[in-house]
Amino acid sequence: MDTNIVTIDLVGREYDIYIGSGLLYRFADFVPEELEGRNVYIVTDTNVETYAERVRKIIKDSGAARCELIALRAGEQAKSFTNVEKISDWLVDKGISRDSIIVAVGGGVVGDVTGFCASTILRGVSYIQVPTTLLAQVDSSVGGKTGINTRKGKNLVGSFYQPAAVIADIETLQTLSKRELLAGYAEVLKYGLIRDAAFFNWLEENGEDLCDLNEVAVAHAVEVSAKAKAEVVQADEKEQGQRAILNFGHTFAHALEAAANYDGRLLHGEAVAIGMVMAFDLSVRMGLCEREDMERVERHLNKIGLPTRASYIQPALTTSVDKLMEIMGRDKKVEKGKMRFILTNGIGDSYMEDNVPEKHVRAVLEDSLGGKDGRSASGSVAKSFGNSKVRGLWRSVFSSHSSQ
Amino acid sequence: MDTNIVTIDLVGREYDIYIGSGLLYRFADFVPEELEGRNVYIVTDTNVETYAERVRKIIKDSGAARCELIALRAGEQAKSFTNVEKISDWLVDKGISRDSIIVAVGGGVVGDVTGFCASTILRGVSYIQVPTTLLAQVDSSVGGKTGINTRKGKNLVGSFYQPAAVIADIETLQTLSKRELLAGYAEVLKYGLIRDAAFFNWLEENGEDLCDLNEVAVAHAVEVSAKAKAEVVQADEKEQGQRAILNFGHTFAHALEAAANYDGRLLHGEAVAIGMVMAFDLSVRMGLCEREDMERVERHLNKIGLPTRASYIQPALTTSVDKLMEIMGRDKKVEKGKMRFILTNGIGDSYMEDNVPEKHVRAVLEDSLGGKDGRSASGSVAKSFGNSKVRGLWRSVFSSHSSQ
Repeated sequence: MDTNIVTIDLVGREYDIYIGSGLLYRFADFVPEELEGRNVYIVTDTNVETYAERVRKIIKDSGAARCELIALRAGEQAKSFTNVEKISDWLVDKGISRDSIIVAVGGGVVGDVTGFCASTILRGVSYIQVPTTLLAQVDSSVGGKTGINTRKGKNLVGSFYQPAAVIADIETLQTLSKRELLAGYAEVLKYGLIRDAAFFNWLEENGEDLCDLNEVAVAHAVEVSAKAKAEVVQADEKEQGQRAILNFGHTFAHALEAAANYDGRLLHGEAVAIGMVMAFDLSVRMGLCEREDMERVERHLNKIGLPTRASYIQPALTTSVDKLMEIMGRDKKVEKGKMRFILTNGIGDSYMEDNVPEKHVRAVLEDSLGGKDGRSASGSVAKSFGNSKVRGLWRSVFSSHSSQ
Repeated sequence: MDTNIVTIDLVGREYDIYIGSGLLYRFADFVPEELEGRNVYIVTDTNVETYAERVRKIIKDSGAARCELIALRAGEQAKSFTNVEKISDWLVDKGISRDSIIVAVGGGVVGDVTGFCASTILRGVSYIQVPTTLLAQVDSSVGGKTGINTRKGKNLVGSFYQPAAVIADIETLQTLSKRELLAGYAEVLKYGLIRDAAFFNWLEENGEDLCDLNEVAVAHAVEVSAKAKAEVVQADEKEQGQRAILNFGHTFAHALEAAANYDGRLLHGEAVAIGMVMAFDLSVRMGLCEREDMERVERHLNKIGLPTRASYIQPALTTSVDKLMEIMGRDKKVEKGKMRFILTNGIGDSYMEDNVPEKHVRAVLEDSLGGKDGRSASGSVAKSFGNSKVRGLWRSVFSSHSSQ
């Protein structure tokens, strides 16, 4: 199959995202800098070291002066100050200089922490993203946000730093667990929901093929997603305004992830799936959006096998509306005490709203947690999810580790 | 006296440096953002907490929603990953949001670590520099370089991040120890040496007045220095080329500081004074510069009371030419294995040179350490330094702590 190229055009820093199958074998073709005589440093994690070793071999064969590799222990906890210090010390030990190149081979966690290190070591060294999960290919590798977690929350420390290239080899998705793949799918769906109703329609038709790793469907979805993200980022690199729509469902999602203590029972994409339904629910309650749209989204997520309610999370969250409100208050999207949400007028038509009444937010949370009115526990949508064969899939894997 | 304003004009991010006496009492006048209703976070150190408290009072009186203060233990070791994590956690704990303001009150150490935190917390929050040492007022607070040290060297991790304003109150220099003041003077002199022979002449005339804290002389020198730095930074913010001339003497200086284990026997400015003489010596040996110019510089430094030779450092460095060469090889200004130095054609005329023969570098190091040919130990310049009353000053204070 062909290699698709999406160009990110930021003032003075244009770069390409390459999308295709088997691209890792042609890694050197996509690196804008000359590899010969240069020092290259690969950061990866224990799940995808095989891919990283493949890249390393090609870099060595291309005449690099040196190619070192470090593998972090896989998992969200890798996005820590401890690892930034460890990677920085390692880079200096191994002779990094300003013309070196850093390569991140892995999912969003590896990309985020490596990007942060690349942006700060020697005050900034060139880096290349090789995303190996669907989530990373359609979301975290595009747009230059880097970050690590602090004790108090996710991505609270980071930078805006663009890579020199992104190489999305969809072949690497074959070793991804179904659960991780679906989690990535939530972010794919997001692009349809926020700004592209036609893409949502396409996903209703082709989403299952995509999740069965039909190469044509995957390549198309990754390209559309990367393009959508590129367009938003180009319009607003530093998230002064419009870029915030990419956070559709994310304020809720981050709160759920925090309430789940990042203990593995809820993947980021799963939290986003629930959060997006909540954002629709909030928009319905505010009279902005038809209930029918919300139900259509929820049905699709359920069919694909993604959770849509906080009450589906197992083991159940020990949290409350108050607690979730408090966590959301800490979220960085709060300005001058007002709560900001990305709302929607319907599928494909979202926008940023700074003045959301607290009572609606509380009602949405209560419902999703399986609250008083029982809508979420007994409603028709929930029932159809309950009958779906994929529901079992999601439930059964919550405690197992992914293969990437 | 008047407030002098130097404007830094970077694409899309223009800001002002205010220079004058008693400016802290008018802090709120210089902050571009509205303080009312905003959260403000002051980072300072234990030496200058008094000034920070003064600023805090004004911020509170200006209607800020909240003004928190953290005081780091004074000293170079404050530029650590540990402190970045500590400050970041503190900021989140105290409710920081994207429209908050961070204020750094202190010397270069506080400015560097605070600037780094400001550039990375929530991926970047506005910050204001209140430099309280001469070094910080003329150098580190201007130009947007932030950084922390790693186990392997100084400033190896950092960012380019411009403040919203710099407020240089020269009144704060009154509590600075003579030794710290002189160390700052070395960076003032640097601007004369690299690009402004007339300013060097002025310093030959007025340098001693400046070091006696004559307000007019100090304000003039800070303004000229800030302007000089601003011009260089405007031409080359990210140090792709020309900005490197600001590192005149610094490759040598960093090596000396590392060899002294940052244990307090050698301040950064003192190391720069020695390093600048070494850079002149290297230029003389390469036939670029008259020996007379080097001697004139060395005489002036000695007269002011700054060290000019590595052999003057007490307790004596336990190092060698090989060891210093190795440290310089780790320096971030090394590219593709070549050594880069800022050389000079004479006072006021420096430039970057990528191809410096190793033998000349070694000879310079050997001489400064008091090597075989005995030039530095027995030469006429060294003798005049030996007779100077200020030499005793520098020697006597090496083990004492500064008041800031």
